[in-house]
Amino acid sequence: MDSLGLMKNLSQVSPGKILLMVLDGLGGLPHPETGKTELETARTPNLDGLAAKGVSGLAEVVSPGITPGSGAGHLALFGYDPLRFTIGRGALEAVGIDFDLRPGDVAARGNFATADRSGLISDRRAGRISNEKCAELCRLLDGMAIDKVKILVRPVREHRFIAVFRGGGLGDGVTDSDPQQIGVAPKEVTALRPEAEGLAGVANEFIARVRKALAEQHPANAVLLRGFAQRPELPHMGELCKLKPAAIAVYPMYRGLARLVGMEILETGSTLEDEFSTLKQNYDGYDFFFLHVKWSDSAGEDGDFERKVRVIEEFDSALPGVIELEPEVMVVTGDHSTPAVFKAHSWHPVPVLVSSRWCRPDAVRQFSESACLGGGLGHFPATRILPLAMAHALKLTKFGA
Amino acid sequence: MDSLGLMKNLSQVSPGKILLMVLDGLGGLPHPETGKTELETARTPNLDGLAAKGVSGLAEVVSPGITPGSGAGHLALFGYDPLRFTIGRGALEAVGIDFDLRPGDVAARGNFATADRSGLISDRRAGRISNEKCAELCRLLDGMAIDKVKILVRPVREHRFIAVFRGGGLGDGVTDSDPQQIGVAPKEVTALRPEAEGLAGVANEFIARVRKALAEQHPANAVLLRGFAQRPELPHMGELCKLKPAAIAVYPMYRGLARLVGMEILETGSTLEDEFSTLKQNYDGYDFFFLHVKWSDSAGEDGDFERKVRVIEEFDSALPGVIELEPEVMVVTGDHSTPAVFKAHSWHPVPVLVSSRWCRPDAVRQFSESACLGGGLGHFPATRILPLAMAHALKLTKFGA
Repeated sequence: MDSLGLMKNLSQVSPGKILLMVLDGLGGLPHPETGKTELETARTPNLDGLAAKGVSGLAEVVSPGITPGSGAGHLALFGYDPLRFTIGRGALEAVGIDFDLRPGDVAARGNFATADRSGLISDRRAGRISNEKCAELCRLLDGMAIDKVKILVRPVREHRFIAVFRGGGLGDGVTDSDPQQIGVAPKEVTALRPEAEGLAGVANEFIARVRKALAEQHPANAVLLRGFAQRPELPHMGELCKLKPAAIAVYPMYRGLARLVGMEILETGSTLEDEFSTLKQNYDGYDFFFLHVKWSDSAGEDGDFERKVRVIEEFDSALPGVIELEPEVMVVTGDHSTPAVFKAHSWHPVPVLVSSRWCRPDAVRQFSESACLGGGLGHFPATRILPLAMAHALKLTKFGA
Repeated sequence: MDSLGLMKNLSQVSPGKILLMVLDGLGGLPHPETGKTELETARTPNLDGLAAKGVSGLAEVVSPGITPGSGAGHLALFGYDPLRFTIGRGALEAVGIDFDLRPGDVAARGNFATADRSGLISDRRAGRISNEKCAELCRLLDGMAIDKVKILVRPVREHRFIAVFRGGGLGDGVTDSDPQQIGVAPKEVTALRPEAEGLAGVANEFIARVRKALAEQHPANAVLLRGFAQRPELPHMGELCKLKPAAIAVYPMYRGLARLVGMEILETGSTLEDEFSTLKQNYDGYDFFFLHVKWSDSAGEDGDFERKVRVIEEFDSALPGVIELEPEVMVVTGDHSTPAVFKAHSWHPVPVLVSSRWCRPDAVRQFSESACLGGGLGHFPATRILPLAMAHALKLTKFGA
């Protein structure tokens, strides 16, 4: 039985609250001059205090050697096996702009592109049109109806948009129209399985109608679609775990991921301070909070070691305001590593700390990759973080009589 | 392949003996004043000596965060994945009174209850009748035959009994007759799947006949049945592992669990001393012994930290008598944690030590939760304890050529 099956069978309501704080891309690698990672370099008296009283470990997000994307990383932290529950590209793109993808919706990533007179693609990105132009063209195309299907079109950035096919009981499993090269015509969308015939027909009709609607919009006179994917069917976390879960995240992608597992999305501002005050204002209304801190990952991606250190230190400084709320369980971890020296997501396991009065203490006195290696949680799969948090909040009954 | 599959393929007979000693509920949590767990507090020179020469670790009984019941905990120690092999409530209750449940038997937990003149339940426990009265009523009801099914009835305690449906090729999967409330009639037992129709019919007929048989027995004039469950089909440990296994346990539940996996049950007295002398007397007749020590768990459940410490110390004092038998492999562990400060089973992993001349030694010099955390066995699933014991007793051949 996987973590979710266990949660479904064993979860019970208890008064304690769980606070899952995710520092995106938290795990790091040593700075070549100091031999210390970002987290080891940062001055973090509050995190160290939680680690000293709590229990720590290292979590494998997907499996050893596998670098997680943001979707996979967060699903694992929410208890969903990312190897079993996958989010298709189109669905992830929709989630990434906070689009409220509904069950049955099929989403595709789109590019505005340039087609020459004979219909061959001469620029796959239409000269990278502006965000404003993209939004204008999306408004033009939005809301088309083909058979029983309504097609919603929303801008992403520059030449990128999403097309969401809603209604008509569509199945997914179709090929891309994007040929991924220039000098050729867009491809016909074809069904990879019988249930997807309807979607293929509607997609081709949509593409044809768009060509007409965009005829005068050169260089953005064509569209290329790829990564058609249905909204993944994820069991509702609140129902499985008998929780009332809420998400606090500045960036749309993470709100979208939380929405996919059924969390309520709390309105917040654009800073860590805003996120923490949203937590305080809503503290009484929920018993599980996912709080997402994006800037550690951005600094890692930019290769900015010092900035990642500062983000961690700022988070640490703000922690006392959270600790005084006295949640029954606090978890601090990352959804993957983004070492600044690597400038990208990496496969290295992520440090995890669990703080609760029911922790069996270990020798960890500092929250860091090297200390977590000897922590009481050991080296374990990230999908087990949720069961551990639930257990420490007394939200799980005994397994077997 | 799970542990059992590996045992089946790789096990071989060897002269060495394995002694698995289970201190029930061994794992603990720190005393708030000393910061030391029960095991860390206890003076255990003999266990520490075994740990120093052997290899130690921490085992997850079910999976991280999951609190094991006694059945699940012991199955894991015997090598059976407790998530795959589950023991239904009725079957566990039968096992718990040492009833020899046979393949095909379906057991239900029963309450003697009080029904008013119109058949509505006015007391689900018949005023908690005495053990003697319960035994008397069980004798009255025992041995009924309905179609090809014989119904065996045995007392448990006060108003509680078991009813075992034997013969007739019954399948399980039926609802309870116990309505779990008063002022209503008992429920009709209904089949949850076609194979269980026969059982449902026999159970309803049994309940009706019991009502007549108990008509003059007010307040115990009705029965309520729940948790109908077949004896789980567990492969025989002796056959899988090419062992002759025996169990020494004072409490019936643990003898029953050992019987379910095919161990022979040795007669013993009511003290640890009795158990150790049973071991000595039968030492030549078997090559695998499961020895169960209950009192550490009872003390933990009672929240009696000092008593749990004493149980561990008493066990340690008696150990030299076992060590001088020179078993090839000794394993000391728990089936779950029962921290005295928690007063219940908990999810925390259990300390394990393996002692054998073939251990690769580690730095552990004291048998304790904190020391085991750095032990050579690492942090591993409890189902792997049996393969480790088998390996150290040279009872496993190579895997693959």
